[in-house]
Amino acid sequence: MNRRMVFYMIGQIIKLEAALLLFPVLVSLFFRERCLWSFLITAGIAVVFGFGLTLLFKPKDKLIYAKEGFVIVAFAWLLLSALGALPFFLSGEIPSYIDAFFETVSGFTTTGASILRSPEPLSRGLLFWRSFTHWIGGMGVLVLIMAIMPNDSGRSIHILRAEIPGPIVGKLVPKIRETAKILYLIYVAMTVAEIIFLLCGGMSPFESVVHTFGTAGTGGFSTRVDSIAGYSPYLQNVITIFMLLFGINFNLYFLLLVRHFRSVFKSAELWCYIGLFAGSVGVITANIYPLYRNFSESLRLSAFQVSSIMTTTGYATADFNLWPDLSKSILFFLMFVGACAGSTAGGLKISRILLLFKIMRRELKRLLHPRSVGTVHFEGKTVSDATLSSVGSYFILYAVVLVFSFLLLSFEPFGLETNLSAVVACFNNVGPGLGGVGPAACYADYSAFSKMVLSFAMLFGRLEIYPILFALSPSTWTRK
Amino acid sequence: MNRRMVFYMIGQIIKLEAALLLFPVLVSLFFRERCLWSFLITAGIAVVFGFGLTLLFKPKDKLIYAKEGFVIVAFAWLLLSALGALPFFLSGEIPSYIDAFFETVSGFTTTGASILRSPEPLSRGLLFWRSFTHWIGGMGVLVLIMAIMPNDSGRSIHILRAEIPGPIVGKLVPKIRETAKILYLIYVAMTVAEIIFLLCGGMSPFESVVHTFGTAGTGGFSTRVDSIAGYSPYLQNVITIFMLLFGINFNLYFLLLVRHFRSVFKSAELWCYIGLFAGSVGVITANIYPLYRNFSESLRLSAFQVSSIMTTTGYATADFNLWPDLSKSILFFLMFVGACAGSTAGGLKISRILLLFKIMRRELKRLLHPRSVGTVHFEGKTVSDATLSSVGSYFILYAVVLVFSFLLLSFEPFGLETNLSAVVACFNNVGPGLGGVGPAACYADYSAFSKMVLSFAMLFGRLEIYPILFALSPSTWTRK
Repeated sequence: MNRRMVFYMIGQIIKLEAALLLFPVLVSLFFRERCLWSFLITAGIAVVFGFGLTLLFKPKDKLIYAKEGFVIVAFAWLLLSALGALPFFLSGEIPSYIDAFFETVSGFTTTGASILRSPEPLSRGLLFWRSFTHWIGGMGVLVLIMAIMPNDSGRSIHILRAEIPGPIVGKLVPKIRETAKILYLIYVAMTVAEIIFLLCGGMSPFESVVHTFGTAGTGGFSTRVDSIAGYSPYLQNVITIFMLLFGINFNLYFLLLVRHFRSVFKSAELWCYIGLFAGSVGVITANIYPLYRNFSESLRLSAFQVSSIMTTTGYATADFNLWPDLSKSILFFLMFVGACAGSTAGGLKISRILLLFKIMRRELKRLLHPRSVGTVHFEGKTVSDATLSSVGSYFILYAVVLVFSFLLLSFEPFGLETNLSAVVACFNNVGPGLGGVGPAACYADYSAFSKMVLSFAMLFGRLEIYPILFALSPSTWTRK
Repeated sequence: MNRRMVFYMIGQIIKLEAALLLFPVLVSLFFRERCLWSFLITAGIAVVFGFGLTLLFKPKDKLIYAKEGFVIVAFAWLLLSALGALPFFLSGEIPSYIDAFFETVSGFTTTGASILRSPEPLSRGLLFWRSFTHWIGGMGVLVLIMAIMPNDSGRSIHILRAEIPGPIVGKLVPKIRETAKILYLIYVAMTVAEIIFLLCGGMSPFESVVHTFGTAGTGGFSTRVDSIAGYSPYLQNVITIFMLLFGINFNLYFLLLVRHFRSVFKSAELWCYIGLFAGSVGVITANIYPLYRNFSESLRLSAFQVSSIMTTTGYATADFNLWPDLSKSILFFLMFVGACAGSTAGGLKISRILLLFKIMRRELKRLLHPRSVGTVHFEGKTVSDATLSSVGSYFILYAVVLVFSFLLLSFEPFGLETNLSAVVACFNNVGPGLGGVGPAACYADYSAFSKMVLSFAMLFGRLEIYPILFALSPSTWTRK
């Protein structure tokens, strides 16, 4: 492995974090808050650490492969979180470092699971930073999708993957940069649009920005203990729509920009996303109607919640923990599904699930007609056997990580519903679960060990398992 | 599809059931019970129905393929249960036919989930028949494994599968018969051995037979409301050991008989089975020790319960619902695992799980070294890509059936723990779950609709999904 290059790249990313910390510094300055110092100290540490790494490990050889890519990604997320947790800890507003780490991992992985019983006592600078990590995380994921992630849908551009022999980063940067620039422009434009819509509804500028960060990254941190429940129906509906929009594959927005309307219209994943949303909203609206005795309220609450859970955002306008079992089960199921591939959402992703169904159908055909060719088509293209096999393997790995995290969490006495949904909600980057970790509760009661387990579940989920696995594997570090 | 042959074979199987009904007839005669008549009427119906089918559909062409095999198996289990439920219903001892059907499906699928709040008021003839269905189901599964099931482990003999072109049943019967005979001899010998061991411990002859049926088929129906809890430690330990023995691949017993000791010793599945058992018992013993303050009691109870759940039998000597979360989570996890392939146990089976892990490892290797060959070995043989792909597809299908069954059960207001564990316990043919369907409770409170959902979950699990799927698929019936 090209260790120098790995450390160098991590150094660069930490320098970037130092720069990003200037935003909460400005917010704290604006509100004249004491937490300003904790940001400045953290930024200082990041500068020293970042420059230390880049100066010490100036790479002689810029050649990197998939393995290096995975390790860089894993450590970037881990170290960004470890450093990003310092302001919470240094300011004393989250007295335990483990808690602060959990909260920051939850931020950067765009999960939105919180150890705070209420975010309201937090100073504004920290509230801003907490939600800003969602926005940064969402941005990071967008690049990751293009650059490093295994290519499931046959559409994403992947450059650092091992199958392309000897990519030289220097040569690639222009390509990544160009695509990244377009994606970032879309991301920023949508962010600005949501802020404007929220401001129009009378939300304060600070809250508009914070809640938009939570929506854009599909994170879910709010400024209030009751999440979005206290806001007007208009504001709730705006957030519903923007959560849905951020759950759509960003490639489709790019296609819209270049006026490839037919390709967008023909996206199987998009139709499935819309269908699943509409179907779930329909059933849940009918199911919760007796609780509210008001059709429009039931519809608004169910649309908000389905949108929030499907896109793995995790905002809430009602304590869905009190809804009937059918609604809870549908929401629980949607936590696994997630939204579209190529969005900022977590979960398995709809295109992957569609491919899993196609694998299944091919096997059923093969059982009856062993000599059938069984090619699989998706979004107008033939999917290679290698891709199908990697989708299947990912699903196995996904189940294994889920089971192990759940068993590790079982030292906690909170019962199956709470423990299982905690793992599911963290691993799929949703945030709130059911029972003791429902939208009206938080993760404060878990032990430090369990918080670390859940933090790693969030990282596993956000980075789609492989990077963390390779970074933790001894063979990555020992063999040449 | 060769429909005549399908109906003819189903007719033959129903005639067999008529013959098997003579055993409970004898038991009712012996105990001079009124339920005798319900058995006689049922046997009469079976004779008429069975001969009707075989006479009406005398096949001109005995050629059958995988599709016919699947459909025969599905309908055999379904009709055996539908008819087998009649004695419970006709005698009036289970007044609802749906309940009787659930109970009988649970019997033939060797699940052991019950709608009876207590089995004790049941007459002995019906208690015998209830447990006898376990024993018949277990026997049926043993033949199924050899004859029709997809070959996952590369060891089972499969004859009716589509990949062998044009098998003629007439020619095959001697081959199946020979292997079946050996398996049945082992099954019967082990059954007799367990009865003797139980009798030696002072269990009554009737109870010894009934509990042995439950063990052999890995079913779990007992004569008592507290299952095995009221029996002596010796009897509990005998059942622990026999449950474990019936969870081992029957091919290994065959290999022992022909003195291939080395092959048995080298079975990866066997070692994994033993290791998983020992590990789980160790953790649970330590975890429940504070409840019992007695090491030998904790060990006995935990060994019994791990053995019972792993082999998907479902007997209980303690209400594990009251154990700490860690123990419950391990037991919940073991419900999915099941025991060895080629045994009477349900669940995913250990060899399949080992192969899933190998698929995962191959994918991890491929990600880093795309040109690696990545052949997978299991039990000393190379596993073909087709087998691996079918194991992966089965896992996807397994998850899909689980999710759908769970969503269908969510109309019930019993909460996630009860509903989810009900589906898991039925689909994996375990029997008791957690919460409201724990070992101290039963499935009586579920609606008729949910009981049908769970009955189908049991059938899906027992027959490894494909047969029921093909039998229900319209394309099986319409296309030539």
